[in-house]
Amino acid sequence: MERGFKLLSSLVLSSTLLTTVSIAAGGDGTLDKVMKDRGLSEADVVRAAKTYNPTGVHDKYLIFSSGGQSGQVLVYGVPSMRILKYIAVFTPEPWQGYGFDEESKKVLDQGKIRGKDMTWGDTHHPSLSETDAKVDGKWLIINDKANPRIAVIDLSDFETKQIVVNPVFKSEHGGSFFTQDSEWIIEAAQYAAPFDNNYHPIEDYKESYRGGVTMWKFDPKIGRIQEKDSYTIELPPYMQDLSDAGKKVSHGWGFTNSFNSEMYTGGIEVGMPPNEAGMSRNDTDYLHVYNWKKLAEVAKDPKNVKVINGHRVVPMDIAVKNDALFLIPEPKSPHGVDVDPTGEYIVVCGKLDTHASVYSFSKIQALIKNKDYAGTDPYGIPILDMKKALHGQVELGLGPLHNQYSPVDGEIYTSLYVDSQVVKWNFKTLKVLDRVNVHYNIGHLAGMESNTADPQGEYIIALNKLSIDRFNNVGPLHPQNHQLIDIHGNKMDLLVDMPIPLGEPHDAVGIRADKLNPKVRYEMGTNSRTEQISEGKTLAGQERIERKGNDVKVYATLVRSHINPEHITVNKGDNVTIYMTNLERAEDETHGFTVDNYNVHASVEPGKVATVKFKADLEGVFPYYCTEFCSALHLEMMGYLMVKDPNKKYESAQKLKMATMSKEQLKAEYDKTVAVNKATDDVIQSVVKFLKDNHYEKHDVVKNLVTDALDQYGKIPEQKKLSDAAIKEGDFEKAVLFENMIWQYMVKTADVGIRAKDLLVKFVATKQSPEAAKGEVAFNEGGCSGCHVIGKVSSGPDLTGVLGRHENGEKWVADFIKSPKDKFEDPYVKAMIDYFNLRMPNQNMKDPEIKSIIEYLKWIDSNANLF
Amino acid sequence: MERGFKLLSSLVLSSTLLTTVSIAAGGDGTLDKVMKDRGLSEADVVRAAKTYNPTGVHDKYLIFSSGGQSGQVLVYGVPSMRILKYIAVFTPEPWQGYGFDEESKKVLDQGKIRGKDMTWGDTHHPSLSETDAKVDGKWLIINDKANPRIAVIDLSDFETKQIVVNPVFKSEHGGSFFTQDSEWIIEAAQYAAPFDNNYHPIEDYKESYRGGVTMWKFDPKIGRIQEKDSYTIELPPYMQDLSDAGKKVSHGWGFTNSFNSEMYTGGIEVGMPPNEAGMSRNDTDYLHVYNWKKLAEVAKDPKNVKVINGHRVVPMDIAVKNDALFLIPEPKSPHGVDVDPTGEYIVVCGKLDTHASVYSFSKIQALIKNKDYAGTDPYGIPILDMKKALHGQVELGLGPLHNQYSPVDGEIYTSLYVDSQVVKWNFKTLKVLDRVNVHYNIGHLAGMESNTADPQGEYIIALNKLSIDRFNNVGPLHPQNHQLIDIHGNKMDLLVDMPIPLGEPHDAVGIRADKLNPKVRYEMGTNSRTEQISEGKTLAGQERIERKGNDVKVYATLVRSHINPEHITVNKGDNVTIYMTNLERAEDETHGFTVDNYNVHASVEPGKVATVKFKADLEGVFPYYCTEFCSALHLEMMGYLMVKDPNKKYESAQKLKMATMSKEQLKAEYDKTVAVNKATDDVIQSVVKFLKDNHYEKHDVVKNLVTDALDQYGKIPEQKKLSDAAIKEGDFEKAVLFENMIWQYMVKTADVGIRAKDLLVKFVATKQSPEAAKGEVAFNEGGCSGCHVIGKVSSGPDLTGVLGRHENGEKWVADFIKSPKDKFEDPYVKAMIDYFNLRMPNQNMKDPEIKSIIEYLKWIDSNANLF
Repeated sequence: MERGFKLLSSLVLSSTLLTTVSIAAGGDGTLDKVMKDRGLSEADVVRAAKTYNPTGVHDKYLIFSSGGQSGQVLVYGVPSMRILKYIAVFTPEPWQGYGFDEESKKVLDQGKIRGKDMTWGDTHHPSLSETDAKVDGKWLIINDKANPRIAVIDLSDFETKQIVVNPVFKSEHGGSFFTQDSEWIIEAAQYAAPFDNNYHPIEDYKESYRGGVTMWKFDPKIGRIQEKDSYTIELPPYMQDLSDAGKKVSHGWGFTNSFNSEMYTGGIEVGMPPNEAGMSRNDTDYLHVYNWKKLAEVAKDPKNVKVINGHRVVPMDIAVKNDALFLIPEPKSPHGVDVDPTGEYIVVCGKLDTHASVYSFSKIQALIKNKDYAGTDPYGIPILDMKKALHGQVELGLGPLHNQYSPVDGEIYTSLYVDSQVVKWNFKTLKVLDRVNVHYNIGHLAGMESNTADPQGEYIIALNKLSIDRFNNVGPLHPQNHQLIDIHGNKMDLLVDMPIPLGEPHDAVGIRADKLNPKVRYEMGTNSRTEQISEGKTLAGQERIERKGNDVKVYATLVRSHINPEHITVNKGDNVTIYMTNLERAEDETHGFTVDNYNVHASVEPGKVATVKFKADLEGVFPYYCTEFCSALHLEMMGYLMVKDPNKKYESAQKLKMATMSKEQLKAEYDKTVAVNKATDDVIQSVVKFLKDNHYEKHDVVKNLVTDALDQYGKIPEQKKLSDAAIKEGDFEKAVLFENMIWQYMVKTADVGIRAKDLLVKFVATKQSPEAAKGEVAFNEGGCSGCHVIGKVSSGPDLTGVLGRHENGEKWVADFIKSPKDKFEDPYVKAMIDYFNLRMPNQNMKDPEIKSIIEYLKWIDSNANLF
Repeated sequence: MERGFKLLSSLVLSSTLLTTVSIAAGGDGTLDKVMKDRGLSEADVVRAAKTYNPTGVHDKYLIFSSGGQSGQVLVYGVPSMRILKYIAVFTPEPWQGYGFDEESKKVLDQGKIRGKDMTWGDTHHPSLSETDAKVDGKWLIINDKANPRIAVIDLSDFETKQIVVNPVFKSEHGGSFFTQDSEWIIEAAQYAAPFDNNYHPIEDYKESYRGGVTMWKFDPKIGRIQEKDSYTIELPPYMQDLSDAGKKVSHGWGFTNSFNSEMYTGGIEVGMPPNEAGMSRNDTDYLHVYNWKKLAEVAKDPKNVKVINGHRVVPMDIAVKNDALFLIPEPKSPHGVDVDPTGEYIVVCGKLDTHASVYSFSKIQALIKNKDYAGTDPYGIPILDMKKALHGQVELGLGPLHNQYSPVDGEIYTSLYVDSQVVKWNFKTLKVLDRVNVHYNIGHLAGMESNTADPQGEYIIALNKLSIDRFNNVGPLHPQNHQLIDIHGNKMDLLVDMPIPLGEPHDAVGIRADKLNPKVRYEMGTNSRTEQISEGKTLAGQERIERKGNDVKVYATLVRSHINPEHITVNKGDNVTIYMTNLERAEDETHGFTVDNYNVHASVEPGKVATVKFKADLEGVFPYYCTEFCSALHLEMMGYLMVKDPNKKYESAQKLKMATMSKEQLKAEYDKTVAVNKATDDVIQSVVKFLKDNHYEKHDVVKNLVTDALDQYGKIPEQKKLSDAAIKEGDFEKAVLFENMIWQYMVKTADVGIRAKDLLVKFVATKQSPEAAKGEVAFNEGGCSGCHVIGKVSSGPDLTGVLGRHENGEKWVADFIKSPKDKFEDPYVKAMIDYFNLRMPNQNMKDPEIKSIIEYLKWIDSNANLF
């Protein structure tokens, strides 16, 4: 198998852009054929073109979508509708080590309720942080309806950093919504329940059950909710639903709707009509309008608050006394309340009404100022007259739910659940402009930075609740269907369906991708959840195992392709902590880690420290390994945890005699390995020379790769020292292994170095003429590249310089392509046939193709130094 | 808000196919503009067309991919590369209720190791069940490398039904592979470890650590592994890697390669070179070749097996004595071993060698028959001479790993990890045919039914381990990149990149979608994990709460949109079991269920019974609700769990006096509600008439919807009875609520009924002429539909019959479109302007467009009965 290495070396220099092929299309009927084969219309092709991203092309927008009952957040690109990541938020997720490493367990532990682990969430409304009512790309928050909590995700690394539990709600829905400078977060309750943790009979619903809105103080600089500066506004048990924060002219105010102003409490089991009947009896429910800014001041006075479960609650009567809480009737069982980009209009849609209602903030303020009330509710809250507060209403269709704004003045998009439509209308003129069918039963819809002061337009996404027949059947539990709608033109155009493979997303928000700038690595030694340097930070050479009584702490490092240490022996019952530092700097060079059967897993990105902890309660031998396919030698990136029972005696079983190598054989293997390394190093040096000669440092992306390759290469001298030391001790066996390690580092250097070289070639090659480009296509399409690889001897000769190899070279080559067999007796061709044991076939090339290929060969020769 | 209802009624009949718009493309420059805007080449457009699925179009192939460290399996479509589902397998997943309901907990409990919960898995190799070496679409299995286990997934509902733990391995990799009639499953170990559960020092590696292959007996009829009929072949601690089962001529044999025939055990922490150096020292490792069929017979004799951890193990010497175990040298550190469609060729690629090695099964058999051995290994296993067993070798490039076959004789596709390429070659002629660059560092590659006796060709998917720059940056942890490659032509063509949002898929298998036929609902009352009728099956009317001491059992039903019961009161400390039966029959009508703060969740598809169980250890009031947006009233689908402390005394807090309605007011509300219901019913009856008149029963998809609508409608008489009974008792309040419930059922009937009607219209409408179709486009694109909705009065008059409304109607309409203001004084137009308070604008239509619109209007009139 020595040949193996030689070919490896010979290949190092020759891997190039040889297969960068573009196929000819359009003009030659290829597209027509594909359309016919796949039954596509011309409109389909336009839609395909509007949503297709060629390899490596990024999306213009990113969508952050709730993952519904998966408890996670998903991120996808628009217009390609490709899901880029499920971010672990409320549910343990092993790929990310979330809930399986110690750092993330501390985040999840913040989400315990009354001491109980909550291992999932029903995520509903994601919200992006804002500065001056525009999204700023810094923080994302999302709420959990089932276990009233809010999580904070850092958009610099897409990791969950904080979870806070609502101390008084038992359920919530109308969170989470940032205010316009992210100084507060609105979280409204859903199902009313007692604020305390005691039993109260359902008969006491009106007296003891409460709704509310919690205003969480948020520090946008550090991205953390400040729990003790936060407070809750007590509200009647009307079952609050969605909320939105006022902005610009309405900044300081919050809006929260409700769906059970009937205060019906059901009783189907005792012959009462179900909740769905009783809760939708009235024609109107209440929009809650509150001045949270004023109430934040009010709450500072301890006389104005009740402290429940350690949390400040502003009672309704205090809020009313301070002119900070009002109700406005709104159509039956509303869903969305959405403040327009100016802050003046508040659009509410009632799912059991066919209208959208547009309220005017200035009209509301005038009513408040003049104390022009239509009455009070049973709890003494002033009610404003609906008609006087309305700018107007417009009939949209069946089951209108949510609204998204566009940059066009007055333009708004509303989802219709029952009609399964998106309707475009104007909330100023109150005219319907367009509608499009979606599939099926749309809930929320998501625009791009839509409900901010700076909506981007371009696309609307329908978050459909049913997909039914849209996709291949994958069992009784169907995917959801997010449909992308193009809103550039007068008519909306439904572009494409996107199945959601996990969870039922409830709501989603879009952001221009260029507003995000996430990191690709951590500062070496970082605990990513606290963003501090970890106590477990371990650099190369600092690896160690420390013991204190039953506590064993392992300070380990991970790097392509070994874990240090490779053996950990502990006693049964020991508490084992393994800190792992990923020493890599290269982008995407993540290592994973698990100890078999001990149910721990960590994802350790470059620079990160992740920690796993377990009680070694099972005796035995347990492999541990890197769970990412991080390099060619990833399978070998492993070690053994050995758990001894301190009360047992063990005897060695070493009986098996293996044949051993003689000193001479070992010396010969050593010499061979050193020679192989020398040859490989020559190859690497030639790559390095190529890179330097062509100024790799001018191209950032190449420079990063070279840095990584040199990182690997830089580890060689240390191994060489160890090898030399072994030789001094006469231990050839050990020396062979260290030389082998040197070869491994060389392979890793070459792996990355080749990628760097390939990229550099693309940067520095002279531009192809259109004719040469056509030639490259013909060369590849025509099958030439099956045997001829540029810059390399393959199944046929290397064609670099072929035009100069023969007299009147261009004609010679053209003739040969046109009719190979005419030259089979030519001495040069004959020699080649003998050498390769192959005759060049006639590929039936047309004259213009041959002409183009000659141009391509000329281009190759002009860049011969690059191949 | 009465108007709300009236419009609802008026809309019921008019929701139609009005927005089924197709935009004109291609000829009019739209495509060119999109290409320019998005920087697409003609080749890009072809690739877009090759991968785009218009709304509702299904994929030809489904891919089942390992979810890597997520512990799940993902399913996606080809060529659209849309992920359809993450199937929960080894990791709890709340959306599916997996690990959150009792039924699935029992499946996960099967996967406990030595009594410990394993809450994740490192899934590697999925395998589809086969009949006669062809995939049959019945079962899918997948292995867990970290905690050696195999899971069985039922492709009739895409749920995990069984998990078995390997009783002797501590780690595995070369599973799971079905034999050709799915009668056995091959599972090979990875990191060698003692078969027993005791500590053995690493120095005893060669004596006490073992590799092996477990042969699991599988019953393809019921889809379950039969643990006690299974056995393990003991192997040397060479660290077995991938496996494949022989087929056809090689049926009965198994092939498993290895990567540490050096038996190196590392020691980096004590100054030894790391495993990656020591384990790749030799130029060759061993391919294990074994006759599992013969060994299954051998294992039946208790004298031939050792029983370890209750499991039968065939020792190496017994296997050798029975001529059933052999070794063949294979190139350094191989990854893939792949048996060709005929079973004669076995292709092995060594990641540290540049070659693929093609072994011949008949040559291997000849060597075995003639006992032509090159020697034995230290454990006495006969070694066959590599050269004599080889059909040949071919140089492919750097880091060849895995192979997939195509229907073309001899054609094979191999992944090159270091070169980041897929190479096409011929394993018979040993010629390289083509190569394509992928991005980056490909591991496995997946063809369609590829390594079976009937490979389908068409596509190859590259499962790349790094994506680096391919996608928008989503933080240090990158998605993986699956790239779809078209292999229809001579040249491979890279079509599209697909990010993997969760986990690092290791391997994937493809199947023709038409081989799958999953169900969309369960037989009413089914426990989906056992496929038996559940003890908790509850039909409408059977709902109840049963108590026995501290055990409370709730038999509940779920149906749009209520949970029965709505109140559950228990004592603190009670053990609560809630059985839920989803009474729905409609496709995709799933209900979810959770009790707030009790960390349970269930996904209850139509017909299914799911059970949640918890100890009511927290006092208080806890809402429970349906977590799926199942219908317009989904928020109201809720109830309360109330947990009382039996040691506490509670006093009622009822003090609040609410205004109550007088008997007269209640009577008036009752009358109004009954009238509304009557009017709504008239509307429904007219829809029903339309459906019947147009023979809805002829169209299956419409028929299913009508069945569902009538299901809802059928619930009304019972409510009417309750309403009438309340009236008899003089309880108008209660009667109003039951009438309201009737209205809710009517809304649900209408919801589905409208969808049925819309669909039916598409089936029965006369076909549009091309001219009329153009007219519809022009009508929509030109903005007419902004005000005019066919079949309905909207912001402008209904245009149904407009051509007959005026003398010389066609000309009248054409003139009006061309210059509206010329007719503003026309009495009819004047009346319309007054009525709608709008003047028709000039949309600058061209003459041919106007002509087409007239044709469209004619088509409308010919189908006027449908709108």
